[in-house]
Amino acid sequence: MSYLEKVRACARYRPENYLPFRISGEQVGQVRLGFLPQLARFEDTFCCVKDGLNLADNLHRFEQRTEAVGRVLEGLREEGLVPGWRDEAYPVTNSFGSPPFFDMERAAVPLFGVRGYGVHVNGFVGDGGDMRMWIGRRSMSKPTGPGKLDQMVAGGQPSGMSLRENMLKESAEEANIPRSLAEEAVSVGAISYLTERPEGLRHDVLFNFDLHLPEDFEPVNTDDEVDKFYLWPMDQIMEVIRETDDFKFNSALVIIDFLVRRGFICPDDPDYAAIIAGLHR
Amino acid sequence: MSYLEKVRACARYRPENYLPFRISGEQVGQVRLGFLPQLARFEDTFCCVKDGLNLADNLHRFEQRTEAVGRVLEGLREEGLVPGWRDEAYPVTNSFGSPPFFDMERAAVPLFGVRGYGVHVNGFVGDGGDMRMWIGRRSMSKPTGPGKLDQMVAGGQPSGMSLRENMLKESAEEANIPRSLAEEAVSVGAISYLTERPEGLRHDVLFNFDLHLPEDFEPVNTDDEVDKFYLWPMDQIMEVIRETDDFKFNSALVIIDFLVRRGFICPDDPDYAAIIAGLHR
Repeated sequence: MSYLEKVRACARYRPENYLPFRISGEQVGQVRLGFLPQLARFEDTFCCVKDGLNLADNLHRFEQRTEAVGRVLEGLREEGLVPGWRDEAYPVTNSFGSPPFFDMERAAVPLFGVRGYGVHVNGFVGDGGDMRMWIGRRSMSKPTGPGKLDQMVAGGQPSGMSLRENMLKESAEEANIPRSLAEEAVSVGAISYLTERPEGLRHDVLFNFDLHLPEDFEPVNTDDEVDKFYLWPMDQIMEVIRETDDFKFNSALVIIDFLVRRGFICPDDPDYAAIIAGLHR
Repeated sequence: MSYLEKVRACARYRPENYLPFRISGEQVGQVRLGFLPQLARFEDTFCCVKDGLNLADNLHRFEQRTEAVGRVLEGLREEGLVPGWRDEAYPVTNSFGSPPFFDMERAAVPLFGVRGYGVHVNGFVGDGGDMRMWIGRRSMSKPTGPGKLDQMVAGGQPSGMSLRENMLKESAEEANIPRSLAEEAVSVGAISYLTERPEGLRHDVLFNFDLHLPEDFEPVNTDDEVDKFYLWPMDQIMEVIRETDDFKFNSALVIIDFLVRRGFICPDDPDYAAIIAGLHR
């Protein structure tokens, strides 16, 4: 298998199966045709029109929208239509950093094809050919990607917290990284994708950090989200990325971005330009 | 001014002013409506159809196409319609690394909206807050961006040479970097843009390298393409990027990508996600 196949595996999207989800005329997501009838029942909150789904016009304010959509989602949850409920509020925006239209339960975000955001930390030791990276195996109780391999630290981006603060919080919870050490993490960019997953349409941006760790640091999970950590040489990580599906689909892209930025994937790979383009959708 | 404005300044494109340029049914570029009548005169080579411009169907082979289009371009050049002639062969492809359909004079590439490729080297000394970067001022005789600021090394990617080999060649010519030192450059990815410029439609991918230089290295231009080199602290470079148009339009994007990858532009910039998305088009 190739890196490009891994990138393309996160670009499964048939636009003909979706219609836009709009608030006050602005598109903020897209809803699968099959899911529309479920929402059409809630006429006080949603308005199904020929070319999409609109949030009801009389819902003007953040709190109003959050409450009305929350009520619908609670109902759908009882019918088993919102699996993996998290009790985490995610902001609904049409661009990161702009004021959110409302907050939505995290598990529903892919059902509305709304942009999701996360922070991932590549924790590594050594340099060049001697480099090794800490890899986490996700707990079997995680609602997405149970048992899959992951960055040392990875977490969704909730409402009301800065990316850096969230990175520091997740670093403490998932890997017991002292704040003073986590603060040395360098922001290195983001990857993004639009892809159909069992949980719905994922249209995410993952903000990435590189953290060069001392040789004697060992991550310890404190929130039961990671089962085990491994310190693997880059060669092994590169082979696992290329040859298996052991990594969570989006964590694989974060590693591929790392490999590009650090010169492990080189311009002599005929897919080089396509890989880079595929990491930014 | 903001970094995002600089990124958006390289995204000026009105699709309604262009029609696709195709070879054997595959789109490889796009031609400005106003330029089409100039090409329609050469019926042996081009076929103007309702929805675009096709290369004549009887031109099957690489050499045939290169020669036929070359003849047309020579004619247009005599009429003054291909300014900035370079005598450099650029490959016409629809994706980097795939076999080229034919070779085209570099100056004509933007007239056909064909993908162009380049290599840029960020040459820097020091680390973190102490970092400084070598900046070149382009010679006034350059056909594009005369007198503008640029990376220490920057060059177009011609046919028949690997990206790395071209980087080494340009490093020697533009900055007199010994091969043994240039070989330490690390490939770090690419940026891309689609934008209207005086020379035509630029749809380029720039492959970037970072080269950590020893403090006592000083670049010396050997091919008259660079007038002068400056070693500037990052603060100064960041201010010049934001506040002026002194950098060549695309070299500014290469620096912005460096600033993102190295944590100088941080996630607390509200434009962070939009800047990164804008560097990959």
